[in-house]
Amino acid sequence: MEKLGWKIKENEFLKSDVEQNGSRYLIGNGYMGYRGTLEEFGKEQLVALNMAGLFDRNGDKWRESVNAPNPFFVKAFANDTELNVLTANIDSHEQVLDISYGLHSRNTVFCVNDTKVSIKAERFLSMANENLAVIKYSVSADKDTEIKINTYLDSDVWSINGDHFEVTEQTKQDDISVLKLMTLENKIPLSLYEYINQDVENPIKIKAGETFAFVKVSGVYWGEGILNSLDTFKQVNKDYDALLKEHKSKWNEIWYNSDIEVEGDNEAQFALRYSIYHLNSIVPRNTYKCGIPARGLSGQVYKGASFWDTEMFMMPFFSFTDASLCKNLVKYRINTLAGAMRKAKEFDFDGAFYAWESQETGDDACSLFNVTDIFTKRPMRTHFKDSQIHISADVVYGLWQYCTVSGDYSLLEEGGLDMMYQCLFFFYDYAVYKPLKNRYELHSVVGPDEYHERVNNNAFTNKMVKYAVDALVSALDYAKNNMPQLYEEFLLKNDISWVDEFAQKLYIPQPNENEVIEQFDGYFKLEDIGLPEIRSRELIPHEYWGGGNGLATTTRIIKQADVVMMLNIFRSEYSKSVKKANWEFYEPYTEHGSSLSACAYGIVATEIGMADWAYKYFMKTATVDLTGDTKQYVGDLYIGGTHPAANGGSWNTAVFGFGGVSYTNEVLDITPNLPESWKSMKFKLLWKDVRLDIAINGDDVKITADKPTDNIKVTVNKKEYKF
Amino acid sequence: MEKLGWKIKENEFLKSDVEQNGSRYLIGNGYMGYRGTLEEFGKEQLVALNMAGLFDRNGDKWRESVNAPNPFFVKAFANDTELNVLTANIDSHEQVLDISYGLHSRNTVFCVNDTKVSIKAERFLSMANENLAVIKYSVSADKDTEIKINTYLDSDVWSINGDHFEVTEQTKQDDISVLKLMTLENKIPLSLYEYINQDVENPIKIKAGETFAFVKVSGVYWGEGILNSLDTFKQVNKDYDALLKEHKSKWNEIWYNSDIEVEGDNEAQFALRYSIYHLNSIVPRNTYKCGIPARGLSGQVYKGASFWDTEMFMMPFFSFTDASLCKNLVKYRINTLAGAMRKAKEFDFDGAFYAWESQETGDDACSLFNVTDIFTKRPMRTHFKDSQIHISADVVYGLWQYCTVSGDYSLLEEGGLDMMYQCLFFFYDYAVYKPLKNRYELHSVVGPDEYHERVNNNAFTNKMVKYAVDALVSALDYAKNNMPQLYEEFLLKNDISWVDEFAQKLYIPQPNENEVIEQFDGYFKLEDIGLPEIRSRELIPHEYWGGGNGLATTTRIIKQADVVMMLNIFRSEYSKSVKKANWEFYEPYTEHGSSLSACAYGIVATEIGMADWAYKYFMKTATVDLTGDTKQYVGDLYIGGTHPAANGGSWNTAVFGFGGVSYTNEVLDITPNLPESWKSMKFKLLWKDVRLDIAINGDDVKITADKPTDNIKVTVNKKEYKF
Repeated sequence: MEKLGWKIKENEFLKSDVEQNGSRYLIGNGYMGYRGTLEEFGKEQLVALNMAGLFDRNGDKWRESVNAPNPFFVKAFANDTELNVLTANIDSHEQVLDISYGLHSRNTVFCVNDTKVSIKAERFLSMANENLAVIKYSVSADKDTEIKINTYLDSDVWSINGDHFEVTEQTKQDDISVLKLMTLENKIPLSLYEYINQDVENPIKIKAGETFAFVKVSGVYWGEGILNSLDTFKQVNKDYDALLKEHKSKWNEIWYNSDIEVEGDNEAQFALRYSIYHLNSIVPRNTYKCGIPARGLSGQVYKGASFWDTEMFMMPFFSFTDASLCKNLVKYRINTLAGAMRKAKEFDFDGAFYAWESQETGDDACSLFNVTDIFTKRPMRTHFKDSQIHISADVVYGLWQYCTVSGDYSLLEEGGLDMMYQCLFFFYDYAVYKPLKNRYELHSVVGPDEYHERVNNNAFTNKMVKYAVDALVSALDYAKNNMPQLYEEFLLKNDISWVDEFAQKLYIPQPNENEVIEQFDGYFKLEDIGLPEIRSRELIPHEYWGGGNGLATTTRIIKQADVVMMLNIFRSEYSKSVKKANWEFYEPYTEHGSSLSACAYGIVATEIGMADWAYKYFMKTATVDLTGDTKQYVGDLYIGGTHPAANGGSWNTAVFGFGGVSYTNEVLDITPNLPESWKSMKFKLLWKDVRLDIAINGDDVKITADKPTDNIKVTVNKKEYKF
Repeated sequence: MEKLGWKIKENEFLKSDVEQNGSRYLIGNGYMGYRGTLEEFGKEQLVALNMAGLFDRNGDKWRESVNAPNPFFVKAFANDTELNVLTANIDSHEQVLDISYGLHSRNTVFCVNDTKVSIKAERFLSMANENLAVIKYSVSADKDTEIKINTYLDSDVWSINGDHFEVTEQTKQDDISVLKLMTLENKIPLSLYEYINQDVENPIKIKAGETFAFVKVSGVYWGEGILNSLDTFKQVNKDYDALLKEHKSKWNEIWYNSDIEVEGDNEAQFALRYSIYHLNSIVPRNTYKCGIPARGLSGQVYKGASFWDTEMFMMPFFSFTDASLCKNLVKYRINTLAGAMRKAKEFDFDGAFYAWESQETGDDACSLFNVTDIFTKRPMRTHFKDSQIHISADVVYGLWQYCTVSGDYSLLEEGGLDMMYQCLFFFYDYAVYKPLKNRYELHSVVGPDEYHERVNNNAFTNKMVKYAVDALVSALDYAKNNMPQLYEEFLLKNDISWVDEFAQKLYIPQPNENEVIEQFDGYFKLEDIGLPEIRSRELIPHEYWGGGNGLATTTRIIKQADVVMMLNIFRSEYSKSVKKANWEFYEPYTEHGSSLSACAYGIVATEIGMADWAYKYFMKTATVDLTGDTKQYVGDLYIGGTHPAANGGSWNTAVFGFGGVSYTNEVLDITPNLPESWKSMKFKLLWKDVRLDIAINGDDVKITADKPTDNIKVTVNKKEYKF
């Protein structure tokens, strides 16, 4: 894989890279994602048109997102030899992804006997019209050759957990092929349309040096979207250049607001843009009915579900670059409140306990048994679903951060205040009061470090809940002053007498005499071993370290940043020396067994003068989908795909870490910590509806605003900045 | 094995029975126990003189009770052939235990070439003088034979977890051999003395038909007991018949107060007496410095430690037959309060958290890892030690039951009130208050059913704690009215302001609409499978069903009576229909993987008209040490030996179940439910210092008292009984 400016490129075909390239060369437009496979591939090569927000369950297997029929399937034959990289002789091969436009192309020259036959294909999922999948495909040869083209909407798709639809109609209407399907569980309709600008039914004879090219435009619609969709599709201007132009124009706009320019470090520049590319490719743009899956739109891994990853790792990017997208993501949570309340009831609590793995309804797709014991092959009881309660605080954090960054509090009236209240009421019900200590505690939880289940007073969790209850207090105050009708109606329905006491008496673990914050009650008493020791104890590679009997369970080894994650999120509340003490204490125990871990260590490292470590962790985070250097298995479970949380994490590390951006509701500060190799860094931030263009050159910071700045306060190195 | 009146008997020697007979033929006097092995055996045959209350730790292995040198070791040779059942030709063999007197005898005829040589031996551990081990050993032959005798205090003893002493002195003083030793860990001295009434140093020639016999009296002393012990031992009248006479006289006294006579069912009669025999053989008679180990004095299994078994299963027998023994057992707990307070501190609690496995100091001998994972051979984190909190309530129960049954409250002044307070303060600190429910709950506990760890609101545990806090309220009230000085001093030291509120607001799970009490929060939601199904899922026989990933953990399968145990203990508080509903609900899920289980089901069965079941469970309990039909392994851990809790359980089932004895502080009721086959049942009960002789003949109950009955109230079938 080469990286060239805005492109990644393969110069040869390696069968062993097919799976990984499916993720590396992904394209997407928020409505759907298409894996970076080649046109002639089928389900064995994990081809997938992964649909955002469309879920299905086959029998009693787990629910997962649906892969729709493949609109980009093309198989070509030259003199009856199949032009397939898997079987034919290859003279040369290129696969390219242009991340400036989400444009995938390939160029392969095959040797068919003594003829060289060349295939070129270029494809994109339109950013201008999210239903369209567009491909231009051409064949040429250096001798006279008979070409056959086999292309259709391939409904024999890859699916992890069983088929998800049946075909209900397959017809041709004028020049459009129509394929109608229905999901198995909820009978949700999908309609796919195919238009090809050439006759490809019959063999085509081409002369030496001639090229045969065709364009295929497919329309993909599901759910309510199918209404009048055929008419809509018919009216689309199907000219390839026109479609590409409007697609590029949309991408230009996206990059204008979200690009980060780095001078002096091409590696970092590319990795950062590649991360931003992924975030922009997978975020839902026109709906609040779905979240961002933990593996983006790269397939069905993790069931296509959304995790805390969205709020804690990705939302900062969206809130600071395109608030409308962030608002949609918050509305997705408000819209799934009922599911969260059902989940709370299931575990005998009141309020809202958000899904650990959230699909379209907010019911939890997470199983109580989501690891397989590698020794016995039995499902292992884990406590992700029932004990990872911080998710409800993360959701409140997402909403309140949106309000803080955007200055837009309208969501409180659109169900946001109710959502906050229900989340906090859940925590109040979940919490226990300890009379001898006169405080509320949170017991039997799982924090970010999933290797220690059912712990008491996980510092991260308690602190997140404290943030959330403080946010509720602020939101009630805001509503009282600015939304009197909402406030009155709210008080008629809800008892808030407990809120202040809960906020005041919730226990937050504090630094000890060495300034270290204990990850949870009793953590310091666990066996003190490091990573080489735990690895030497493994009986089977990839055996799961957590759960009831895992190797890490009784030791200090942690899966990912936990206290350090907390210090990252609440960076303005802890001193440099506390950050340093905890970073140094926990780092040797941290496996980084999750792609969510490295960026937290990276950001905190920038703040404690550990530039080398910061850069190392930043690069690890930013290149995760380029190198493919991540955990591919937990026990027997495949968990590959793209890593949007890491993509968000690399933006966070760049902006909050190196850019040194921090903020309270009142003020945005920029105190840069550029890595040595970065000569300059330029990016835009949307702060309280003002778009700031920030240029950092060493210690010099230059900011311009796109509108009057009377309502905002910005400081540089903590000193007020005059525009 | 034959059962003959008061005897069990083997009529042949089976090598495969050696281990089991070591437990079956056990003798003991409370100071020490001696396994039912043959005189020529050594450590490979698990010979053990197991010392009550003497513990040692070898290096970093677990602490366990100490096996002292073997005073009964005798090896005889006939014409240089060793007379050993393991190697020689056996003509006939008998091993007999007379449970009326704890008298072990064997009679073996060997074929030595064409000579028949006979060994007879009879031995006992003196009930009259607990330091004495006495044996009479004789050899005869049908032809002239040269006999050699090899006997000494054999210090090469069996030990599970390493050696526990070194020999410090080995001398001969006049006619007494002296062997002095010291334990490794705490340098506790042991002195053993040996007196043999014949010269056995040199070969002895016997004529055909003649018998050579000798008597050996050994003295065993340890700790403070060694002071002047040689002089004491010298002064002992070492005549065998005299020693046997005083021994028998003491046993006669014991049986007079504790026997139960059953007419019409010889099987049950014997099993019941056998159970009573064991209880009387292992209870400490002259000290409160040790408890009763879970495997009695049959060896070192379970580390020689005392569990809740004592209070919940054995104490009823002692409190109703010999209150002084019961008082010692309670004082043992008072004496180990400091250890319990250390344990509470270790887990960051105040008050007293009694040891799950208690040795002499009350520090917990239980490990946080006390099962080995059979799949990985790794130690498995279990929660017996840190979560089986009911132990502190069980200890309070023992004390308060002693007071109730004996009418003797003097222990409150001897540290009993402090002990109660510290136990309850521990629970108050452990408990959590749930404001929305306005109640205290007990979370993350392990109940009697150890297959479900860290559960919330285990009905048994909550109810026991409720009993304990109510007992504290009553004890404070008693002290206020009867022990004003104690009460005043107590109030100066202790805050009791929380006690009433805790007693009132502690949550006790109640029967649901089907009258079933949920074993713990969420139990009903667990997978509903039965025993055949769980067994079919085993991958390895004896794999442990509990712990983090055990087969039972996520199902309704329980190890032993839990709710039914509660209904048994609090039998006067629950209706017959609640008992029936719970018995029928839980019985199919119960493995009876502990010898503590069957008796609880048996007793409750008597109360709900399920006579067949009651009898079945009674016999299972009462014969457990006769049949040896118990779990011998958990994972790889050997757990064989005698089962004092089951011995107590069979007395409980006989007296409380069939005898129908129940009581409150005010009244003792007898409402018999004799099994069909039992024509009559006679037993004595010590109630508030009045010894009642109770004869049940079908529905007819006859009671006589050994002193005026003005202060007690007795009812029969709930109707007041006039003496």
